[in-house]
Amino acid sequence: MAFGYYGTMRTVPGKRDEVVEILLGGVDELRAAGCSVYAVALPDDDPDLISVSEVWESADQHAASLQLPRTKAAVAAAMPMLTGEFTGTRSTVVGGLGVA
Amino acid sequence: MAFGYYGTMRTVPGKRDEVVEILLGGVDELRAAGCSVYAVALPDDDPDLISVSEVWESADQHAASLQLPRTKAAVAAAMPMLTGEFTGTRSTVVGGLGVA
Repeated sequence: MAFGYYGTMRTVPGKRDEVVEILLGGVDELRAAGCSVYAVALPDDDPDLISVSEVWESADQHAASLQLPRTKAAVAAAMPMLTGEFTGTRSTVVGGLGVA
Repeated sequence: MAFGYYGTMRTVPGKRDEVVEILLGGVDELRAAGCSVYAVALPDDDPDLISVSEVWESADQHAASLQLPRTKAAVAAAMPMLTGEFTGTRSTVVGGLGVA
């Protein structure tokens, strides 16, 4: 079964666009790493929040991706622009569209 | 820009699998309706919750899909198996993988 993740991060006011750029910088590598969906989105009615919806072939592949040099560099670059307020939900994806 | 939606629904204990089946019953129609991602998932550590992550070409197409006879029938069939506890976040998808 595929692995799903939905998370949000709060950015320092005025820094949301910069963090989005960082999040989108390594997208090309993700498919080869086992990711089928990586949707970076701006929730309505909150100017400082970013959400990320992800579907991976397995939880192991998701965990491995967090160890990629590109990922670690992105986290380091974004961290000073984040307030530290995160949410995250891990799940098992049981079906749908675009999730294979 | 694409439209994103992330929502959860709580099912009556023991009814989660039945609701999942209903949610997955009309998936074939969704792509033609403008949907690129529709991920039905079971959040870890909560036996009665279902999450749905969606990406649509536009908010209008998402709204129109809710008026499809198949959608209305699915909602009617699932409703008695839901507790009425819902969450939902609407967003603008700014990029990623699998979201076009």
